[in-house]
Amino acid sequence: MPDDFEAMWSDLAPLGRSAASGGYFRQPFTAVESELRWWFLDQCAARGLFVEADGNGNLLAWWGEGSDAVLLGSHLDSVLDGGAYDGPLGVVSSLAAIDLLRSRGVVPGRPVVVGAFAEEEGSRFGIACLGSRLASGTTTPEAARELRDRDGVPLLDAMAAADVEPSLGRAGWLDRIGCFLELHVEQGRDLVDRDEVVGLATEIWPHGRYRFDFTGEANHAGTTRMEDRHDPMLSFAMTALAAGKQARLSGQRATFGRVDVAPNGTNAIPSRVTAWLDARCETDESLLRLVSEIKRQGTERAGRDGTRLIVTSESVSGSVSFDPVLTASVRDGLSGRWGDVPVIPTMAGHDAGILAAAGIPTAMMFVRNPTGISHSPEEFASMADCVAGVEALADAIEGLVS
Amino acid sequence: MPDDFEAMWSDLAPLGRSAASGGYFRQPFTAVESELRWWFLDQCAARGLFVEADGNGNLLAWWGEGSDAVLLGSHLDSVLDGGAYDGPLGVVSSLAAIDLLRSRGVVPGRPVVVGAFAEEEGSRFGIACLGSRLASGTTTPEAARELRDRDGVPLLDAMAAADVEPSLGRAGWLDRIGCFLELHVEQGRDLVDRDEVVGLATEIWPHGRYRFDFTGEANHAGTTRMEDRHDPMLSFAMTALAAGKQARLSGQRATFGRVDVAPNGTNAIPSRVTAWLDARCETDESLLRLVSEIKRQGTERAGRDGTRLIVTSESVSGSVSFDPVLTASVRDGLSGRWGDVPVIPTMAGHDAGILAAAGIPTAMMFVRNPTGISHSPEEFASMADCVAGVEALADAIEGLVS
Repeated sequence: MPDDFEAMWSDLAPLGRSAASGGYFRQPFTAVESELRWWFLDQCAARGLFVEADGNGNLLAWWGEGSDAVLLGSHLDSVLDGGAYDGPLGVVSSLAAIDLLRSRGVVPGRPVVVGAFAEEEGSRFGIACLGSRLASGTTTPEAARELRDRDGVPLLDAMAAADVEPSLGRAGWLDRIGCFLELHVEQGRDLVDRDEVVGLATEIWPHGRYRFDFTGEANHAGTTRMEDRHDPMLSFAMTALAAGKQARLSGQRATFGRVDVAPNGTNAIPSRVTAWLDARCETDESLLRLVSEIKRQGTERAGRDGTRLIVTSESVSGSVSFDPVLTASVRDGLSGRWGDVPVIPTMAGHDAGILAAAGIPTAMMFVRNPTGISHSPEEFASMADCVAGVEALADAIEGLVS
Repeated sequence: MPDDFEAMWSDLAPLGRSAASGGYFRQPFTAVESELRWWFLDQCAARGLFVEADGNGNLLAWWGEGSDAVLLGSHLDSVLDGGAYDGPLGVVSSLAAIDLLRSRGVVPGRPVVVGAFAEEEGSRFGIACLGSRLASGTTTPEAARELRDRDGVPLLDAMAAADVEPSLGRAGWLDRIGCFLELHVEQGRDLVDRDEVVGLATEIWPHGRYRFDFTGEANHAGTTRMEDRHDPMLSFAMTALAAGKQARLSGQRATFGRVDVAPNGTNAIPSRVTAWLDARCETDESLLRLVSEIKRQGTERAGRDGTRLIVTSESVSGSVSFDPVLTASVRDGLSGRWGDVPVIPTMAGHDAGILAAAGIPTAMMFVRNPTGISHSPEEFASMADCVAGVEALADAIEGLVS
């Protein structure tokens, strides 16, 4: 197994990698993502898995037919300048786990499926987990048809350009899934600090993306007196500081990581600053409270600056608890070789969260990340830990299919 | 004259205009700027003016030969999403003033030249007045060869792509110029408030552009605790607020109008925020003081955020006083028809400032802008005021050439 496993990583290593930063740019329905799709199809063909494309950009590779399937997998796309593991680790490990189960002579009593979900990061069309949202009916085809990327390209055009036949909407495969187990690189230092290789997830924090449009009045940066300005950059700056402070005080998370300025010239006061807030909280109530407090402070500052703030919720996901029965059963399957693996919360969104909210019994397994860093070229997992992750995944599946 | 004059404006109106905002995008050495150059060449040919291209992207149209010439003109490029008048008003009015002088039967005793200077706004290569800086030796060809636009295209490649034969460096025409009179739309409300149509300039405030590079550590926006972050967006936000406050308190100008974020993804803490400060002050000393105070506050905040700030001066222009003798003589030439026109300072940089600092006796004439707004689609001048500006310019030239 290790040989094939390392070969898969070697195949993937150069795809979409920036020589400058070492990070990955694997946006959905681009040339590089097409390469990733072809790679996935080749791997499935080599294993004799039947691949189903669902018209939402998702690919599902079936080992066996029928219903009550055990769904594995994750996604192949990345954030802008992301790491190698967030997403691909789940897909590669699932394929390797099938190899390992076969080498153990396991004949599963129910189908095993490896999913590769589209636009999990929302890095191109702004909605995270877009593929699983569409497949589960969480996002409607009508809403998705309105989506545009940063260059104004509609989702359907992007799909067609990437030779993905679009047929948006709830997917038939959903009815044939009995449970979903997503393996993912850890995006924090919990397992490192506990000195554990693998862990399971209890829940996903509620989280959302909110677009803050600050509009002011473009004018000359030299001739316009400070007191005559309506500068949306100042309103944004105050709001970004308020977001950081509010989240810190309440032990939650708030980030402005993306900003778009118009006209974005050095010697012109901007006419518009658009910034996207990513907010995550322990409870649905605290998320509402955090976002409305940031919005309140931003609006107050905009009032003083003579600018205007409009906040649009682009995607909001409520709290998701993973299935306690499935999680306990996966934990039991691991206990022989792994002892009592830790069960920890995650502040990151995942396709697992979308399918769990849609009623599929779902669990998540994490593999240790020694840097604790994710969504960055610094994201890491050792090959030994990745191999251990495959073994743990195979153990868990074996417990579920026998 | 009004017919030809209005025809020139009709020619220019559609070139580089955004249907969405109504603003202009006329970046140097682009397809649209080539159209503007061809338009200028056609206009000069129709008037029998000999056009000299100086290898720095500047065009000079000569009415008469020899030295001690009266240079007129301005520029055709715009800021991103700029107005119709900043630049073109000076070029169009100079051509129209020649028409008017000819219709008056004036035979000038010295050459009259209309200049169209390249990249006055610095909107593509970051250095304002690049054409006049190169022609006057203020910027060296070596420094200019290092310039890249936002897409990484070098200046020389951009020039070549626009069929501008590059031959950077101090221009021979400079030795044949006796004085420079630049007409420009006013970029403030001084003339409106005084109820005057035209005015002259005393001086240009010292001003500069400074690149602020804030570097931090990219990480996951959900899983990274606020206290573990090194978020350069927060360091920038604090610096932008500090700049606004310092400038307001001291009666100066400071603007962050351009920002570039990496990787600029909603769910990733940025690894880098680069922002450009435009600062303008009454004296060279106060400019130094303002910028160093902004830098000090930014560096202090970066220290607290665990990020790093490096500030690079991209272009700094000291205080420029226009030639008092030339200005008085222009004012005399105007007094018959216009009375005592006001003489006011400007906080905007102009090619006139570059040539004045290079030793050319220089004056500036402003035409009223009822909105007071510039570097914006809102910039305006009425056709009646523009015609008055042409008449005033012709009167001034007549005083200088007879």
